[in-house]
Amino acid sequence: MWERFVIPVITTFGWVPPFARGFVRDLRPRWAFEEVGQPYEVALITDAKTPEHRRHQPFGQVPSYRDDIVDIFESGAIVLHIAERAAVAGAGRLIPADGAARIRAIQWLTAALNSVEPFVMALAINDIFEADREWSAARHAKVVEDLDGRLADLQTALGERTWLEGEDFDVGDLMMVSVLGGLRGTGVLDRFPALATYVARGEERPAHRKAMADHLATFEKPFRTEGSR
Amino acid sequence: MWERFVIPVITTFGWVPPFARGFVRDLRPRWAFEEVGQPYEVALITDAKTPEHRRHQPFGQVPSYRDDIVDIFESGAIVLHIAERAAVAGAGRLIPADGAARIRAIQWLTAALNSVEPFVMALAINDIFEADREWSAARHAKVVEDLDGRLADLQTALGERTWLEGEDFDVGDLMMVSVLGGLRGTGVLDRFPALATYVARGEERPAHRKAMADHLATFEKPFRTEGSR
Ligand SMILES: N[C@@H](CCC(=O)N[C@@H](CS)C(=O)NCC(=O)O)C(=O)O
Ligand SMILES: N[C@@H](CCC(=O)N[C@@H](CS)C(=O)NCC(=O)O)C(=O)O
Repeated sequence: MWERFVIPVITTFGWVPPFARGFVRDLRPRWAFEEVGQPYEVALITDAKTPEHRRHQPFGQVPSYRDDIVDIFESGAIVLHIAERAAVAGAGRLIPADGAARIRAIQWLTAALNSVEPFVMALAINDIFEADREWSAARHAKVVEDLDGRLADLQTALGERTWLEGEDFDVGDLMMVSVLGGLRGTGVLDRFPALATYVARGEERPAHRKAMADHLATFEKPFRTEGSR
Repeated sequence: MWERFVIPVITTFGWVPPFARGFVRDLRPRWAFEEVGQPYEVALITDAKTPEHRRHQPFGQVPSYRDDIVDIFESGAIVLHIAERAAVAGAGRLIPADGAARIRAIQWLTAALNSVEPFVMALAINDIFEADREWSAARHAKVVEDLDGRLADLQTALGERTWLEGEDFDVGDLMMVSVLGGLRGTGVLDRFPALATYVARGEERPAHRKAMADHLATFEKPFRTEGSR
């Protein structure tokens, strides 16, 4: 819970095609909110490319976020803000207060976004979004090879630890598990059993289960517009 | 300058092939140090894939960073740490103290790393690292199309402003200019004149000029090992 009564709002899609369900990045703020016990609302949209939504998310994507202090986009920045605001209120379960542990959590969040996600996305781009292009089949093996190299290094870095920095789950793990969760259904993590266990450990947390259930429930209901929950 | 006398050290390559000069990511911490007036040292390596270097950078890349508090990698996290440590010492020129402006600077830093750099890198990967693959020529136009879409959105978001958030340069601009600087020599920014002007404005800052000069000077000298400057 935060330092004062505020209900932050995230904006995301009220409908996505079945293959995207369980993968939309609203899962990241949802999970962060659940970890720190902060209530939130969800505003649902169908079209992220409208001029109105682009005022909040210039690339015409989701999620975006607003509270009484800020209006921001980028799941990485949103999750960090949720974590920091909870920490100010003494609910610092997602970002350590200690200077070194804090910056190392941010290091792993950045690594997830800048060193791992581009390789995960490259596979999705090649195999889903460019599946009908003439180069897709030929390029697949190279994309997998680069991704595997990155994951092998990450698995070595994780070593025998429960979480990336040891015993305590933080915002770096939240982002890394979420990014690796993007590989669900591809079979890639079968080659990296320690990473698969790490991802399962993250996804089994009650906060993640709740976030995922709420995310998926969106698509069970007839679509209602902005302001609905 | 920081709150106490510390000389932080970044580790980077003492030699890179000519095409990579002016692009290595040690430029980012160098630029941040110059903006806040913090002296630093550079440890030079030739091989980032050694077990020893991987203890500091698990993906076997550069830069890595250490000071009296932390040992981290990821240029995004390093630059944020340099900015925040300077802010603690009252030299807060890179990250605003105000809650909203601070998180919006972090939002743009994250956007540079997660929403823009993957598209910039995709072009470099296709046209340089995969230039000899059978798909490279056919795929080029699609990579450029995706990159152009992202840059058009970014140019619209920048609008008439000097920096992404208005009159003040911050760590979000530092990272965005650095990421867009990765397009130098490709001609892509010729299609986005407002972004080209924005990048030039960033690169003309005295702190960037000094960082780039020091970076390039590394390759003028015979290579000396770790601990040299
Ligand atoms: N870097 C952004 C990426 C956002 C993103 O890729 N959103 C996807 C949904 S998960 C989207 O809106 N896709 C629709 C589109 O790109 O048109 C973030 O982390 O927030
Ligand atoms: N996400 C990392 C990327 C680091 C990176 O790509 N470093 C390049 C030099 S700019 C490198 O070490 N390349 C050598 C390699 O990958 O083997 C960061 O921002 O620090």
